[in-house]
Amino acid sequence: MVKIEVILDVVRLEEKLIIKSLRENNVELSLTNLRVNPLSWSVVGEVDLTLIRPISMYRAVYSACIRESMGIQTMNNSSSILISGDKVLTLSKLKALNISVPETYIAFSSDAVLRAGEKIGFPLVDKPPIGSWGRLVTLVKDLQVLKSIVEHREMLLSQSVKTHILQKYIKDSRKDIRVLTLPNQIIGAVVRSPDNREWRSNIALGGMSEPYKLDSELEDLTYKVAEIIGGEFIAVDVFQEDGRYLVNEVNGVPEFKGFMTATRIDVPEILTHYIKGRIKK
Amino acid sequence: MVKIEVILDVVRLEEKLIIKSLRENNVELSLTNLRVNPLSWSVVGEVDLTLIRPISMYRAVYSACIRESMGIQTMNNSSSILISGDKVLTLSKLKALNISVPETYIAFSSDAVLRAGEKIGFPLVDKPPIGSWGRLVTLVKDLQVLKSIVEHREMLLSQSVKTHILQKYIKDSRKDIRVLTLPNQIIGAVVRSPDNREWRSNIALGGMSEPYKLDSELEDLTYKVAEIIGGEFIAVDVFQEDGRYLVNEVNGVPEFKGFMTATRIDVPEILTHYIKGRIKK
Amino acid sequence: MVKIEVILDVVRLEEKLIIKSLRENNVELSLTNLRVNPLSWSVVGEVDLTLIRPISMYRAVYSACIRESMGIQTMNNSSSILISGDKVLTLSKLKALNISVPETYIAFSSDAVLRAGEKIGFPLVDKPPIGSWGRLVTLVKDLQVLKSIVEHREMLLSQSVKTHILQKYIKDSRKDIRVLTLPNQIIGAVVRSPDNREWRSNIALGGMSEPYKLDSELEDLTYKVAEIIGGEFIAVDVFQEDGRYLVNEVNGVPEFKGFMTATRIDVPEILTHYIKGRIKK
Amino acid sequence: MVKIEVILDVVRLEEKLIIKSLRENNVELSLTNLRVNPLSWSVVGEVDLTLIRPISMYRAVYSACIRESMGIQTMNNSSSILISGDKVLTLSKLKALNISVPETYIAFSSDAVLRAGEKIGFPLVDKPPIGSWGRLVTLVKDLQVLKSIVEHREMLLSQSVKTHILQKYIKDSRKDIRVLTLPNQIIGAVVRSPDNREWRSNIALGGMSEPYKLDSELEDLTYKVAEIIGGEFIAVDVFQEDGRYLVNEVNGVPEFKGFMTATRIDVPEILTHYIKGRIKK
Repeated sequence: MVKIEVILDVVRLEEKLIIKSLRENNVELSLTNLRVNPLSWSVVGEVDLTLIRPISMYRAVYSACIRESMGIQTMNNSSSILISGDKVLTLSKLKALNISVPETYIAFSSDAVLRAGEKIGFPLVDKPPIGSWGRLVTLVKDLQVLKSIVEHREMLLSQSVKTHILQKYIKDSRKDIRVLTLPNQIIGAVVRSPDNREWRSNIALGGMSEPYKLDSELEDLTYKVAEIIGGEFIAVDVFQEDGRYLVNEVNGVPEFKGFMTATRIDVPEILTHYIKGRIKK
Repeated sequence: MVKIEVILDVVRLEEKLIIKSLRENNVELSLTNLRVNPLSWSVVGEVDLTLIRPISMYRAVYSACIRESMGIQTMNNSSSILISGDKVLTLSKLKALNISVPETYIAFSSDAVLRAGEKIGFPLVDKPPIGSWGRLVTLVKDLQVLKSIVEHREMLLSQSVKTHILQKYIKDSRKDIRVLTLPNQIIGAVVRSPDNREWRSNIALGGMSEPYKLDSELEDLTYKVAEIIGGEFIAVDVFQEDGRYLVNEVNGVPEFKGFMTATRIDVPEILTHYIKGRIKK
Repeated sequence: MVKIEVILDVVRLEEKLIIKSLRENNVELSLTNLRVNPLSWSVVGEVDLTLIRPISMYRAVYSACIRESMGIQTMNNSSSILISGDKVLTLSKLKALNISVPETYIAFSSDAVLRAGEKIGFPLVDKPPIGSWGRLVTLVKDLQVLKSIVEHREMLLSQSVKTHILQKYIKDSRKDIRVLTLPNQIIGAVVRSPDNREWRSNIALGGMSEPYKLDSELEDLTYKVAEIIGGEFIAVDVFQEDGRYLVNEVNGVPEFKGFMTATRIDVPEILTHYIKGRIKK
Repeated sequence: MVKIEVILDVVRLEEKLIIKSLRENNVELSLTNLRVNPLSWSVVGEVDLTLIRPISMYRAVYSACIRESMGIQTMNNSSSILISGDKVLTLSKLKALNISVPETYIAFSSDAVLRAGEKIGFPLVDKPPIGSWGRLVTLVKDLQVLKSIVEHREMLLSQSVKTHILQKYIKDSRKDIRVLTLPNQIIGAVVRSPDNREWRSNIALGGMSEPYKLDSELEDLTYKVAEIIGGEFIAVDVFQEDGRYLVNEVNGVPEFKGFMTATRIDVPEILTHYIKGRIKK
């Protein structure tokens, strides 16, 4: 019998549905809740695969790499969660393959941020390397706003959050496409548009999803991104500008509640079948 | 002529000496100061290698991976700086090769920390995954201190700093050995002992260094660690317990001021010759 | 008809009981929830008194002083909430009247903390000026723990939290007395003892309350403290050492759930009658 | 002989000049540096007055109130430093006397901030209650910027900094007047205009000062503000709108370097003579 460990912290609807689907498909489950249990390198019993589902990026990366170093397969693996969880690492991987992304500068100081602003011009988008749900992603219309954002960010302690990713604002970024994929098996895609009072299209910020039909160019792009990131079950966020696709972000522990509502695709079921097939090999 | 870019932020004595030595050896230099300049993926001119010397771990990782994605060689590479800069990633790599480390638990919540404390027993050492110079590394003698530390750490915003690495306290950790190495070329080693009023031996905390003569076991261990971390110019910190070596930490952007004073070895000169030889190949 | 505004944020059991009691006693109520409504100096309609119940000290002080500047009576007034909410201000007021408190030093830097530690000796108690429920109140057994606490506190941004109140550890502080009082009308007292695994007796940390019978010395002390602080409905926390009372803290927006359970005294009813009588005057 | 204690932390030009002037005028000085010494309520020797000059507001308030509770006169007293150091307390005091200030809302939550924004309209100014040199004072041109600021502020731990003061933007606030005063003795005034790249006129942000001639209306206003705040040596910042004065802020530990350069008035000399005269009384 197939045995899977699921590591999690906050149990979202996604985790509930995955657990339900795995159980209904005769998978033996062991749940490790990081809110209660510390992790160590001591034996955890026979496990065919550990599914990594913590909501916090660091917790996800750390639990994946601990399990990997014990010889246990993880999904996603720690490297892909880390690369997709940090937008500077993501951009570097994409750039290395000449995948199109918005024009970008990385700045580590107030002076460097202002210089980057001059080079890109306004409006621009400023965001920290780490963070989900569009948090701290700011549409910056002029120099004054940029200076205010720098000042606020300076007050935060984390070196990572003090790093600024500055990008040209893509007009059509108000509509962005999210593709959910497994290796050689695209699950589906949605196009997300922002709530009236918001420019960001994140579902967590009130954005709406509609099903989106992929063309072969976007399919190829998705597989290419998945391969360079090294993840199995990932979400790729893409903008369109002048008919060209620009990759915006990748998610290595994807949420898919909004995706399921929009597409009526049973993601946990597809995931379960993929996992079972993968372990047999 | 060999051309090297040095990326830095704070210019310590180490950076001054490296720059002086490179110049004296006819290396053409281009300095990129992150306090002034943003980084981008646009052309930087022909460069044979980028030397990564920012004091902040994130700045070091980000600048290395940006240069790598432009096809430029970096030293150290981003992956080794990231792995050695995050103690959970380091431990996982070491564990995968069965390299001995102190008994360790990783805990992400107050409850999990207290459970780990019960398992390890007191005294124990608690530290966050990211941080230099012994900062926040705490010798925890009993449960009350552990609870105080958890409470204080909870008040910090960074998810990474909220992660606790709990380790058995190694008696002889008051004397620890630091080996500085290049590939197949150990530069030297020192043994560091703490200041009277301090239990940590970090030089930044007043610790004293003396030259240390490596045996072949420690040499082999150092090369093994360097290989698994993937770094070229690194420092490996090692404890001794019952005649056995335990790897404590690895540093991917090593400081070597105290090392030079203790050993009278000219580290920048050795580094320069290594770099010149490496580029010719 | 008497009309009262209650300003609050989190609605605890205390606020629910107060609102219920006021309504049952024919008081007309207007609730202002700071989680929804901004405050301003514009007219709020006729109000006889504003009861200040936000859980956050700053919110309590700010809402009280805004209402006062509009000519509305507040309970407690902003000055008493501010003085009791900041332990350095409390101590200064008590010291000015020669009221006994534990031996105390206030330190603003790492060096100053270590000097204060030498003067007081160990064990000592270290706490920040602002904070409730015993948070960050640390029993410090030796110099090493003191240095760890300083290091952790340094990482916090708030200047107020970086201030250290260092006090001699009072042996019997494991049992402390809380007196709840109105002007010239002591409501009652409890003695609190800490949970087994905890040295602090805060109810929020698992402490247990039992009714405590006040002697006339403690009654006089309570009235003296209430007068110097300037609050009407306050809680005074007191230690005993060698038969002598030492005032530890004062609370200007008191919680009383544990007090009610232990004493079976109907605090909201007493409070309501006090308020109605006070307004008539 | 007159004896003065000066309490300080960072020794700015202002403190150097004050110390020089006091010494030249035969005042015996005792310096207490908070970076080295903890404060306590134990005897400090005979002192006629303690001059409060720490750069941090909390340090200034705490050292003033400790000295006051020992029966020592302070300048400024703790109450005036606290009220002028916290803009909500300042506004409340001014409002109580019907002194004109910009239209203001105080908001403690994201929802409340957005409501306040609707009521005031854009552009508006958003600032935290505590902070100097214009830090985090933000010109908010539209709802999007307001939401970005709220999001950033939410990430900061301090409850005080999470409080938003929202004010109508005064067009002429780009030129603001600073009056420096002693009781019944206005020292002088300057008008400050912002640097080209900045909308705030703070000297710390590159603003320029020019001497300003007060009319009797502004003189009266200054004395009224000084009295309600309760400070002796304070700076009052004033805007002009439609010929009417609006009080913006008060400073209880004033800097005066820029003021001296612009007016050529010897502030430390005036201060020293005031102090000597005051003590004789």
